[in-house]
Amino acid sequence: MSFIATPQSMHFPEVLPLQSGASIRDYHLVYETYGTLNAERTNAVLVCHALNASHHVAGVYAGQAKSEGWWDNMIGPGKSVDTDRFFVIGVNNLGSCFGSTGPMHSHPDTGEVYGADFPVVTVEDWVNAQARLLDRLGIAQLAAVLGGSLGGMQALSWTLQHPERVRHAVVVASAPNLTAENIAFNEVARRAIVTDPDFHGGHFYRHGVVPKRGLRIARMIGHITYLSDDVMNEKFGRQLRRQVLDQAPLAAAVPPQGASDLVGGGDDDASAQSVQAYLYSTQDIEFQIESYLRYQGDKFSDYFDANTYLLITRALDYFDPARAHGGNLTRALARATAKFLLVSFTTDWRFSPQRSREIVKALLENRRRVSYAEIDAPHGHDAFLLDDARYLGVMRTYFNSIAEEVQP
Amino acid sequence: MSFIATPQSMHFPEVLPLQSGASIRDYHLVYETYGTLNAERTNAVLVCHALNASHHVAGVYAGQAKSEGWWDNMIGPGKSVDTDRFFVIGVNNLGSCFGSTGPMHSHPDTGEVYGADFPVVTVEDWVNAQARLLDRLGIAQLAAVLGGSLGGMQALSWTLQHPERVRHAVVVASAPNLTAENIAFNEVARRAIVTDPDFHGGHFYRHGVVPKRGLRIARMIGHITYLSDDVMNEKFGRQLRRQVLDQAPLAAAVPPQGASDLVGGGDDDASAQSVQAYLYSTQDIEFQIESYLRYQGDKFSDYFDANTYLLITRALDYFDPARAHGGNLTRALARATAKFLLVSFTTDWRFSPQRSREIVKALLENRRRVSYAEIDAPHGHDAFLLDDARYLGVMRTYFNSIAEEVQP
Repeated sequence: MSFIATPQSMHFPEVLPLQSGASIRDYHLVYETYGTLNAERTNAVLVCHALNASHHVAGVYAGQAKSEGWWDNMIGPGKSVDTDRFFVIGVNNLGSCFGSTGPMHSHPDTGEVYGADFPVVTVEDWVNAQARLLDRLGIAQLAAVLGGSLGGMQALSWTLQHPERVRHAVVVASAPNLTAENIAFNEVARRAIVTDPDFHGGHFYRHGVVPKRGLRIARMIGHITYLSDDVMNEKFGRQLRRQVLDQAPLAAAVPPQGASDLVGGGDDDASAQSVQAYLYSTQDIEFQIESYLRYQGDKFSDYFDANTYLLITRALDYFDPARAHGGNLTRALARATAKFLLVSFTTDWRFSPQRSREIVKALLENRRRVSYAEIDAPHGHDAFLLDDARYLGVMRTYFNSIAEEVQP
Repeated sequence: MSFIATPQSMHFPEVLPLQSGASIRDYHLVYETYGTLNAERTNAVLVCHALNASHHVAGVYAGQAKSEGWWDNMIGPGKSVDTDRFFVIGVNNLGSCFGSTGPMHSHPDTGEVYGADFPVVTVEDWVNAQARLLDRLGIAQLAAVLGGSLGGMQALSWTLQHPERVRHAVVVASAPNLTAENIAFNEVARRAIVTDPDFHGGHFYRHGVVPKRGLRIARMIGHITYLSDDVMNEKFGRQLRRQVLDQAPLAAAVPPQGASDLVGGGDDDASAQSVQAYLYSTQDIEFQIESYLRYQGDKFSDYFDANTYLLITRALDYFDPARAHGGNLTRALARATAKFLLVSFTTDWRFSPQRSREIVKALLENRRRVSYAEIDAPHGHDAFLLDDARYLGVMRTYFNSIAEEVQP
């Protein structure tokens, strides 16, 4: 059982200039807070979310079973990030689809739904919007900013955009920028959405449709890259779907006529008797992994906004603090004054340990205080959201030390 | 300059029983041959193709510039597989879209275009069809069967289905079956095609349309998995498209107004002056890798058949010779009597060296003669089609020894 979380909303009438040169005004940010801000206002921890997450980081909603926040295993009373000691803030980013102003809301001037006209937002823009929220909450300096994946990019960017406002940055399963392969996966997902006839150039709301085909494909691609090859083999392997669904006795499934003659081998083998026949279909679900991916795609297409998907993957693509410094990450990070914890996972091939080590190296070259944990976990990129004793232990130890530092 | 290749077609009126229990009759196989069959008929080499390749393995078509076969760098007079010594046969598989009977052809009974009703074909079915072609060509035994990727699966299957007809099997960048991740990528590509409204359940020919959106997505996904992360970073990195297309002086591209204030850092840096501005668009091409993928997708959707894509990826999914032996590959390969060369490439993450080593191990446990070369090449799965001196050298040495064996 977890505690009850309550979303709140803050209105910002003033203009927020964006990195693109565009701007946005009259926007809302939805957020949640857990724990109590101390009198000195020194114990605030900001949690930045990744692609499809939100402000609902921890706790449950009243009367809603299974409504745990996405990092509820990490954050809460007595947990690694202990809300009995920290005042934790989760905020939904601009352009998202979970309450903060996004493409499905209306432009304040025209009253028209933004749709594809919602301005392109970047990691830097999100950080600036988060900083204004902290101003309103009366928080001058964060004990820590914490994020995984795209959230880790925001944590890193905080230390560059507002160095004086961050004591600690905790950057989990992240990278200093995307590789070409990362961008490529994002681009395929975007093309699937944009070329879905129901996308209508991003103005599908007017047509009363949703580009679900594209969203499904996007999510399926995403899921493949969040898991490691090994964990996918372990969870699904080459298991057929019907073995799970039908629970049919294996002996009932006989190979098709003639198959053993054609294949050669196996017919003289006792175990061949129990081999379940393939469906031999190109469109029906044959393997369990297909069933899993289709289910994930369907679920996602029911709740996620297509324009938000484009915006958030683009924010990932664009993030590259070294870019303004000729690609030199060490120079880019020179302005950071925070202390850092970096965490990566050995089987994460989307944001590999090597990318975290690049950040560690650049920080050390600037003589910053950095801790680094490379967790040997089988789950790929998804590991940053999962229970792993070593990972949660590293986080607990680090946040305990922060708590002692800010609340002597 | 290469030699002139000429495609030929062979008609098979008789029924070919398929592994699924279905059958096909009155079909054509398109093939090419290079070199001369010796009097003893002992120097034939069969080349099996992978997903989007064909019978046009080597040589060029008369009067057609840039029409080199897909393995022209490997096969030809004086090349690694020397057509001055070998009689090389390339054959287009059933269900493909390059001339052999496939989904765009008509069912002999109904006269209706097969479309989605083309029977599901497997690696084993292809091998049996190829064996009948060899019967017609009067070739009782192959000096070698050779293939890469899905072609390697066919080469391996030859040694199990017709062990007495194969002296050597050369299996390049292949695997004893697909992993869950491989199947997952195939499934996403298939879903993109099947859910394209222009697919019409596989009967799009009747509607005069082609599911190009789906084919583009399928090909983009494929291309990502054919390349290594490293080579993609080297070829494209985070390079912007306009840097290549416009050749504009870098100084002309200034950051957008306000950007440097928002981002923090960089404005005090001389190199920041020359940083090209992003477009800040979710739908336009920003990065060079996006341009490359879209181009590859467009090109592919102009010539490849959607039903063929489904059939061939399914043949990949289904191949699993160990399946009839309780997953025991060693027992599955016991029936092979050929001598083997296995080749893999270090950066191939689609058919990793580990998968080739599984085959090597199973063959050695059966006391078969196996040579294995693990080539340190940067190009990922694509490496099997590219020029690499060590790779081509290994192939030359191995095929020279075959030539000496079959033509004393």
